[in-house]
Amino acid sequence: MLAEVALPDRDPAIAAAVEARLAEKTMPPGALGRLQRLATALAVAQDSAHPVPGPAEAVVFAGDHGLVAEGVSAWPQAVTALMVETLCAGGAAAAVLARAEGARLEIVDVGVATPYRAPPPGLVEARIRPGTRNALVEDALSAGDRAAALAAGAAAALRARDRGARVLVPGEMGIGNTAAAALLAHALAGLPLEVLAGPGAGLDPAGVAAKRAILERVAARRPGPLDAPAALAAFGGFEIAAMAGAMVAGASARMAVLVDGFIATAAAMAALAAHPGIRPALIFAHRSAEPGHRAMLQALGAEPLLDLDLRLGEGTGGLAALPMLRLACRILDEMATFESAGIPRDAG
Amino acid sequence: MLAEVALPDRDPAIAAAVEARLAEKTMPPGALGRLQRLATALAVAQDSAHPVPGPAEAVVFAGDHGLVAEGVSAWPQAVTALMVETLCAGGAAAAVLARAEGARLEIVDVGVATPYRAPPPGLVEARIRPGTRNALVEDALSAGDRAAALAAGAAAALRARDRGARVLVPGEMGIGNTAAAALLAHALAGLPLEVLAGPGAGLDPAGVAAKRAILERVAARRPGPLDAPAALAAFGGFEIAAMAGAMVAGASARMAVLVDGFIATAAAMAALAAHPGIRPALIFAHRSAEPGHRAMLQALGAEPLLDLDLRLGEGTGGLAALPMLRLACRILDEMATFESAGIPRDAG
Repeated sequence: MLAEVALPDRDPAIAAAVEARLAEKTMPPGALGRLQRLATALAVAQDSAHPVPGPAEAVVFAGDHGLVAEGVSAWPQAVTALMVETLCAGGAAAAVLARAEGARLEIVDVGVATPYRAPPPGLVEARIRPGTRNALVEDALSAGDRAAALAAGAAAALRARDRGARVLVPGEMGIGNTAAAALLAHALAGLPLEVLAGPGAGLDPAGVAAKRAILERVAARRPGPLDAPAALAAFGGFEIAAMAGAMVAGASARMAVLVDGFIATAAAMAALAAHPGIRPALIFAHRSAEPGHRAMLQALGAEPLLDLDLRLGEGTGGLAALPMLRLACRILDEMATFESAGIPRDAG
Repeated sequence: MLAEVALPDRDPAIAAAVEARLAEKTMPPGALGRLQRLATALAVAQDSAHPVPGPAEAVVFAGDHGLVAEGVSAWPQAVTALMVETLCAGGAAAAVLARAEGARLEIVDVGVATPYRAPPPGLVEARIRPGTRNALVEDALSAGDRAAALAAGAAAALRARDRGARVLVPGEMGIGNTAAAALLAHALAGLPLEVLAGPGAGLDPAGVAAKRAILERVAARRPGPLDAPAALAAFGGFEIAAMAGAMVAGASARMAVLVDGFIATAAAMAALAAHPGIRPALIFAHRSAEPGHRAMLQALGAEPLLDLDLRLGEGTGGLAALPMLRLACRILDEMATFESAGIPRDAG
């Protein structure tokens, strides 16, 4: 899918080396649970026996969806542009969390439909088209659109790499993108739309039922299973393809990629379907409150770090997991061993 | 139980005030899930519409258990003293996490049985007796022991308060204390020992079965339901009673009290049974891997913030939740409102 990206060979001994270091720590075996497994996962993702929690960079890709014309979102399309402005101004949740965690935040417009009230400061302008086409009528993305979005995502990841980032948090903003994400997960993994169609940013039960009915019609136009390029073209969106590109390029650059919630996981499904070798680079950060996310994570065999009931997107779940990376690294680096503490190993 | 502690009246308008501020933020209602509920809970705990994530202090109370003579732990009693030394030296997990989070850590010996190899630097010596009595034979604590342990815990909380702490993380170290915690939860809440008897710091299935058989015999000596003073006396331990005292005094001082795992929750059950008014001060931080913890949390109607599969104690689950308090406060303080961002509220 991203033909120019070469995934690196990874040192197969790293996980065992980190686990051996953890086994020497002054605690019952495995007693730090997910925190110590995170240390190992981060080491594998970074292909280094000395994992680091940063520098971390979040990249929020923004794009609009032609399908919102059918009424799949509780919010009008113009909110995408307004939220890009709010992200660039530092007031959106992802901006607050990134600042709190010392993570750089970049906002990339890959396909917003509405003009900005004023040029958002710091915005990376990479708009391919003003929103995807209506997936109920035609493919959301042309082959060229898809390639451009994947490349925009990869370029953002490599910019982060060039600034020294070791952890990448791809995020998204796009009214209607839970619909596209549900369609992707349905076409790529065969998960039922009944499970995947959820409230998104605030549909009521009648709205969810209507959304599901529309998704069934869209899926019938392009029945699955589809491969990743076909699924991304059929359903979009620009920001989801860009996230997939960022994930693949991030993995190729030996960055740990924190996978946020429902939309990011759909992007990860597409990226993994085309490039299964990126799996060791992905760390699933958060289980979204969007009901279908659980099924998507199960399909991937992923157990996320956090379960904070977030359903906001923007990379917020990934950003909220950054402290856990920091704690995991501190445990690995600073905790005493049985030997250093003078405690007999056979005490247990 | 702590007769001298007066719980403060709390401003009943605070939760609604914080929720109203959160409702103005640029997101769908409730989209930050547990993170925004945490902001409200922290405000209520601190009885302030402007909650703060710190200064935070962790206090690890250490004590031994006479019941270990019956074989309820995978580790020998001497490990309690060795781990106190490791905590004081800064190498134990709680010390690493406290340092990482900028939290002060105090270690208080309220009843360790084994002499130290050398005086641990910074240790607060408040040893009441060298370990509890064997609860299979007699009450673990006398009335005087219990009062002294409660008072030692309260004193530690008030020292933290006097240093300006606004968040308190009570932790514990004590070989055998999952047995005491299980007995407390059984006697106080009627939960079955079949559910509560778990592997603790590493028993194998045969060890768990043997532990359960011993716990059944101990419980038969002092059948429940018991009130909190009777249960603490019957089963101990010093460090659990001290945690309960710290929780009550912390609540009285309007500190937010982060409740760690299995042992801390047993202490919270005792504290709540005697002083139900402390409930608003408690924030349950982590669901332990110890199987019975889920049942204890359910009995309390508590939904912890994190589920990291930790089973180490020392306050590690509470310390790991400190970053979430920080993020919650940043969201409350820094996130833009619909009005400040110029986004129409009726867009949704």
